[in-house]
Amino acid sequence: MTKIEEIKLEALKPKEFIEEKIKETSSIVGSGLAINALSGGVDSAAVTLLCHKALGEKLKTYFIDNGLMRQDEPEYVVELFKKLGVHVELLDAKKEFFNALKGLTDPEEKREAITQTFYKDVFGRIVKESGAKYLLQGTNFTDVEETIAGIKRQHNILEQIGIDTEKTFGYKVIEPIIQLRKTGVREVAKALGLPEEIYKRPPFPGPALVARVIGEVTPEKIETVRQATKIVEEELSNTGAFQYLAILHEDRVTGIRDGKRDFGLQIEVRCWESKDALIGSPTRLPYETLDKLAQRISTEVPGVVSVTYNITKKPPSTIEAV
Amino acid sequence: MTKIEEIKLEALKPKEFIEEKIKETSSIVGSGLAINALSGGVDSAAVTLLCHKALGEKLKTYFIDNGLMRQDEPEYVVELFKKLGVHVELLDAKKEFFNALKGLTDPEEKREAITQTFYKDVFGRIVKESGAKYLLQGTNFTDVEETIAGIKRQHNILEQIGIDTEKTFGYKVIEPIIQLRKTGVREVAKALGLPEEIYKRPPFPGPALVARVIGEVTPEKIETVRQATKIVEEELSNTGAFQYLAILHEDRVTGIRDGKRDFGLQIEVRCWESKDALIGSPTRLPYETLDKLAQRISTEVPGVVSVTYNITKKPPSTIEAV
Repeated sequence: MTKIEEIKLEALKPKEFIEEKIKETSSIVGSGLAINALSGGVDSAAVTLLCHKALGEKLKTYFIDNGLMRQDEPEYVVELFKKLGVHVELLDAKKEFFNALKGLTDPEEKREAITQTFYKDVFGRIVKESGAKYLLQGTNFTDVEETIAGIKRQHNILEQIGIDTEKTFGYKVIEPIIQLRKTGVREVAKALGLPEEIYKRPPFPGPALVARVIGEVTPEKIETVRQATKIVEEELSNTGAFQYLAILHEDRVTGIRDGKRDFGLQIEVRCWESKDALIGSPTRLPYETLDKLAQRISTEVPGVVSVTYNITKKPPSTIEAV
Repeated sequence: MTKIEEIKLEALKPKEFIEEKIKETSSIVGSGLAINALSGGVDSAAVTLLCHKALGEKLKTYFIDNGLMRQDEPEYVVELFKKLGVHVELLDAKKEFFNALKGLTDPEEKREAITQTFYKDVFGRIVKESGAKYLLQGTNFTDVEETIAGIKRQHNILEQIGIDTEKTFGYKVIEPIIQLRKTGVREVAKALGLPEEIYKRPPFPGPALVARVIGEVTPEKIETVRQATKIVEEELSNTGAFQYLAILHEDRVTGIRDGKRDFGLQIEVRCWESKDALIGSPTRLPYETLDKLAQRISTEVPGVVSVTYNITKKPPSTIEAV
């Protein structure tokens, strides 16, 4: 692997960057077929739109519904790209993901199960069936750094989708935004013509809501954290914060309902000020906002008796808890 | 049990209350022998000093070191009462308590183990050996209300110390402050001549630091939450808040240390505005204070990578988490 040079925000000219990447991608793929998975985040959205400009019908884009997304996310993303003239194939893989997660409590094992199910079982199958030899990925510069630093595990996408790189040739991974950090990606996304709700969208983790559930993941727990996430996003979307999220704890805490003891659930809210996710500080939200968050989550989400707010910086915390 | 009438704060005349209770206690105990356990909280401290004024040498006071106290608590309490002219017998029962807690994760079972060990095994033994027939208790009016409401379990102290109330007679429980709420007890404690550090002391739960550990309790976890508690008390003692505490979660969360992933501990800080613990709101601490708490706890307490702050009111939260 050759060393990847970062393009700093000061040096980034979004329009020129886009032109260059369109040419580059187009010349690599030629008359071949490319494929990519769209998650709805700004990284994969930018890559999808950029490469559709470069490749048109030669790029097939899939949205894999793993059942772990935010409320109405799959339909929202497919609709949005339809308006931009890009057809996205929606694939229901909910059962496969929940089966893979059954019984797992260790965060690394949970992340691994998502990765394996996504790459080997679902996306790997599509890639092989499609006949595509080019895979587009929304890897960014922070991902690269964190992989090198040992914070994220190394991703060799070809091995991950079950393609033996020693035996097979001709597969190629294209990562058009690998030289950019998040703020750079947002500039590019804006220049591409993506709507503000996408280019300003807070980051969402690869393993989706699985990263927001401590302990074993079940459809019920995902539903709980999904509802809490919706409230957090509604209340905090106007803060301009880098990222905001709800975490469902496995710990049960004592609460009180109708005057009786109720051993219930705890939701942790995190809201981050950050440029690139590498370091971060909790947003100094007004107490009125914290009050409203606690009040809404503990009344609207069944079973929740306690809401906390993260006050730790990254490091030693991380953005996500799982 | 006859109905207990609350003495409201407006109606309370501390000096007269003390005089009356001294007479009452003295006339009940007569030439008998009384016994009580001092925990270091304002309730039992007030009862201890009030009844020593009434009974002198006829009252024996014990401090039972269960290994679950705040840092240097046993020595601190014994010394403080020595200065007030009251001898307190210090009893080391650490092993008994940790043995009773082994393997327990359910909060109710943990509380029950503490209660059983305290009353049946340790205090029950002392009561029977001492020959005392009068037991002094620091029960207050909020305890009574919460017992009736089903939030706390009913305490029949005689049954709890293993004395069969149907077979034995002559045992009597005296509860001098049962008509007062916390603020009233503080007034009385002040009028009794207890130092400010006692009469202004935030409440501390009966099961001590066990109430601050989610999941199984071990000496190591108690040490972790003890260190966090010390920091929380140092940083928040000048806030005038009703109560402030640190909770060690069982959930592990992802953190980052020296650039590497570190699957670590989480401490939850709670700080309460309340008059009587019946309802409460999180104190609106300045973010500078929250920052400092998070920074100190995550650097000074080994293993901690994340600190949160409770933002939920009581109800639906409770003051403590276990």
